[in-house]
Amino acid sequence: MLYAVKMNVSIPDHLDPEVRADLVEREKAYCQELQTSGKWLHIWRCVGQYANISVFDVADHEELHRILWGLPLFAYMSCEVTPLAQHPSDLAAGEVAA
Amino acid sequence: MLYAVKMNVSIPDHLDPEVRADLVEREKAYCQELQTSGKWLHIWRCVGQYANISVFDVADHEELHRILWGLPLFAYMSCEVTPLAQHPSDLAAGEVAA
Amino acid sequence: MLYAVKMNVSIPDHLDPEVRADLVEREKAYCQELQTSGKWLHIWRCVGQYANISVFDVADHEELHRILWGLPLFAYMSCEVTPLAQHPSDLAAGEVAA
Amino acid sequence: MLYAVKMNVSIPDHLDPEVRADLVEREKAYCQELQTSGKWLHIWRCVGQYANISVFDVADHEELHRILWGLPLFAYMSCEVTPLAQHPSDLAAGEVAA
Amino acid sequence: MLYAVKMNVSIPDHLDPEVRADLVEREKAYCQELQTSGKWLHIWRCVGQYANISVFDVADHEELHRILWGLPLFAYMSCEVTPLAQHPSDLAAGEVAA
Amino acid sequence: MLYAVKMNVSIPDHLDPEVRADLVEREKAYCQELQTSGKWLHIWRCVGQYANISVFDVADHEELHRILWGLPLFAYMSCEVTPLAQHPSDLAAGEVAA
Amino acid sequence: MLYAVKMNVSIPDHLDPEVRADLVEREKAYCQELQTSGKWLHIWRCVGQYANISVFDVADHEELHRILWGLPLFAYMSCEVTPLAQHPSDLAAGEVAA
Amino acid sequence: MLYAVKMNVSIPDHLDPEVRADLVEREKAYCQELQTSGKWLHIWRCVGQYANISVFDVADHEELHRILWGLPLFAYMSCEVTPLAQHPSDLAAGEVAA
Amino acid sequence: MLYAVKMNVSIPDHLDPEVRADLVEREKAYCQELQTSGKWLHIWRCVGQYANISVFDVADHEELHRILWGLPLFAYMSCEVTPLAQHPSDLAAGEVAA
Amino acid sequence: MLYAVKMNVSIPDHLDPEVRADLVEREKAYCQELQTSGKWLHIWRCVGQYANISVFDVADHEELHRILWGLPLFAYMSCEVTPLAQHPSDLAAGEVAA
Repeated sequence: MLYAVKMNVSIPDHLDPEVRADLVEREKAYCQELQTSGKWLHIWRCVGQYANISVFDVADHEELHRILWGLPLFAYMSCEVTPLAQHPSDLAAGEVAA
Repeated sequence: MLYAVKMNVSIPDHLDPEVRADLVEREKAYCQELQTSGKWLHIWRCVGQYANISVFDVADHEELHRILWGLPLFAYMSCEVTPLAQHPSDLAAGEVAA
Repeated sequence: MLYAVKMNVSIPDHLDPEVRADLVEREKAYCQELQTSGKWLHIWRCVGQYANISVFDVADHEELHRILWGLPLFAYMSCEVTPLAQHPSDLAAGEVAA
Repeated sequence: MLYAVKMNVSIPDHLDPEVRADLVEREKAYCQELQTSGKWLHIWRCVGQYANISVFDVADHEELHRILWGLPLFAYMSCEVTPLAQHPSDLAAGEVAA
Repeated sequence: MLYAVKMNVSIPDHLDPEVRADLVEREKAYCQELQTSGKWLHIWRCVGQYANISVFDVADHEELHRILWGLPLFAYMSCEVTPLAQHPSDLAAGEVAA
Repeated sequence: MLYAVKMNVSIPDHLDPEVRADLVEREKAYCQELQTSGKWLHIWRCVGQYANISVFDVADHEELHRILWGLPLFAYMSCEVTPLAQHPSDLAAGEVAA
Repeated sequence: MLYAVKMNVSIPDHLDPEVRADLVEREKAYCQELQTSGKWLHIWRCVGQYANISVFDVADHEELHRILWGLPLFAYMSCEVTPLAQHPSDLAAGEVAA
Repeated sequence: MLYAVKMNVSIPDHLDPEVRADLVEREKAYCQELQTSGKWLHIWRCVGQYANISVFDVADHEELHRILWGLPLFAYMSCEVTPLAQHPSDLAAGEVAA
Repeated sequence: MLYAVKMNVSIPDHLDPEVRADLVEREKAYCQELQTSGKWLHIWRCVGQYANISVFDVADHEELHRILWGLPLFAYMSCEVTPLAQHPSDLAAGEVAA
Repeated sequence: MLYAVKMNVSIPDHLDPEVRADLVEREKAYCQELQTSGKWLHIWRCVGQYANISVFDVADHEELHRILWGLPLFAYMSCEVTPLAQHPSDLAAGEVAA
């Protein structure tokens, strides 16, 4: 099942630079592992913002929540989750009414 | 270049049903032509809404604007456009700092 | 899988009273059928509003979207969909960390 | 009487980890006690958010306010309270007009 | 039990003046009957707005919903409902902690 | 003259507990004095929120501003002030057109 | 007593042009009468908007409400009312603490 | 040229009381100097808020920006600036169409 | 003096197509005349929206208001006006502190 | 390609004044270098705000994102990015339909 997730990151400027660098590094590794496993389908940077738009392909709500809750930067971000269904105009979707 | 576009559709209920059906049919054909040409990369239905999240891959702003302005349902929708850059954690992105 | 859905209904006052009565009646039958089948778990009226908060238990996003899109009053409502996961404090949830 | 409550939690990152762990643990015990007593009917995690949607069944406003005000994490959350009435389409509701 | 209700009225200008006058007259009679019965405790006009702030004292959510849903102008207003509890500083409240 | 005031309180968690307790205690005394003098007509707790809805009966804007500005917790709250006029449906209001 | 009022006007385009012209003309006469009587102290056009910011000096809430409710264009505008008190830095205000 | 400016002040509670008192005192002197010079035409306190509505009469945008940027409390406030034109109903405005 | 203006256009779909075409044509001529005279410095289309961002260089507020109020499409748009001052980092701005 | 960017700056008052002065100085140099290279076309101060409206002319999304992400004050600002296309009424735009 597919979900779009908009993640807005806001790291307070009092955070220790080493802690911050470590968090960002672990976030990257965590993200890439999930890309490799096929669960994190897309990640795009929103231009000019510390934010991304991602698409996940997971088994169910529980799996998505575990993934997001486990993000090393989770405490410093807000997530908007949008469940996605097949669009009737999607060429891959066959013959469904609009 | 990539853009995320959220389209919210709101067709007034006084629209003639045939006009409406014709618009929806032409919208679908228009969308599928652009999928075939590789410009409309993704289209997903937002669950429970007359809305979609799409990703476009076009040459520049002018091309995206011509595409959106030309949508048969354009007069009945609002579009939020987000320019997308490569994310440093994207496996396809090579070695860029987060 | 569980979803909370807030439905806000807004029927324009120019709608023919018979059409309206028919829509409301069909909405009720549609809703009760889905309750009987176990897919529409809860429906509560928000006090003082033409709105409800519902909980659905369906197989996946596609099924929920088909159900909502098929609501007789769908053209006159807006839906906010929230995917629900098990809460770690839920007695039914066993031993999960908060 | 039924109330839907959306709780958004925001614990500042300067809070001592032990204090935080203690608060979260007491929150869980408090919540489960109220589930056992039948007052906290439902609690669901909103996917990807430190938030929940709950349904309470209490005697009156005073009882709900005492329960919410007494939450160990109350100082770190915001609550939206929606009073719920029986919906005319609810199968349990008998014959009420829509 | 007490509830604060903010009612915002918006009557479309295409409504027949006689229908409108009749609705407003029936709204007034309906309101005054509920004042006499002690259920509609307060009603104040918000200065410069077609809106009021009211306080109701009713048995439960069901009774309040029936009253609001039955307002002759209900189709032309939006209601915000706030459940009210006793405030610890209220002189009538006796000795409750703040 | 009557005014509705919605007060939202937000005390930062770094405030010294004794300072906080003292502020809350003085707020209560201040509030009760004004109730006794007939200027603070009503105060209700908004269920599940550190907020209240109050009604004041004072001579003029200056008096209301002095009262609110002097609240011991003023620095930690935000106030929305709504001037109230007599509603034409108020039984106490005599014969005024709606 | 002083009040700032922001008036946003929105006249539907289906209104008969003569009715509209008559309303606008009567609005102007009404406004100028109140300027002459000293109750409508200031009226400024917000640049690029069909809106104005006005300041009224009236006896009390009742008088302001009667004035606003009686505006020929009242049905086509929304009003935000802000009660104004003397500012401690106002040269006319004498020695008041900030 | 005239401008309406709404200033919302928010001084953090960790600011040293002497620093704060000094800022407020200098703000007052700064404001009164500009009143004397005829540039700061009006300043009113918004009842129940640490906010004011002001009207400035200055030569151009540059002058207004220099004045606002130079406010001793500028770092602790947000300003909404509305350019004002003569209103056609203003008695001082002569014969301009509405 | 410079002003940024964001114009959002919303032409109702019941407008007669010829009236609409005439309005759009006159809007274009009006806009180009003001470009030629040097008052309408910039106009850019916001991608995917019936909206533009413009910059005007006019003598004063009165002139800008007359220009905007006179737009053939004025009745079908909303305008947000932002007065612009020279930025201290602007190379054309000489030596001003940031 | 052109982009409008609205930058809102908010520097916390606990930042060391020297660090702040250094950041502001480097921001200015960075901005002016990009003006010289022709990428930062316009920068205007929003009157009364620590904010600017800028227009960039860059090769693509990647270049704009690198520029904004590299702003010395980036951690203390929020950016709204609007892609700009040629407007059909722009004299420079030749003959395009509105």
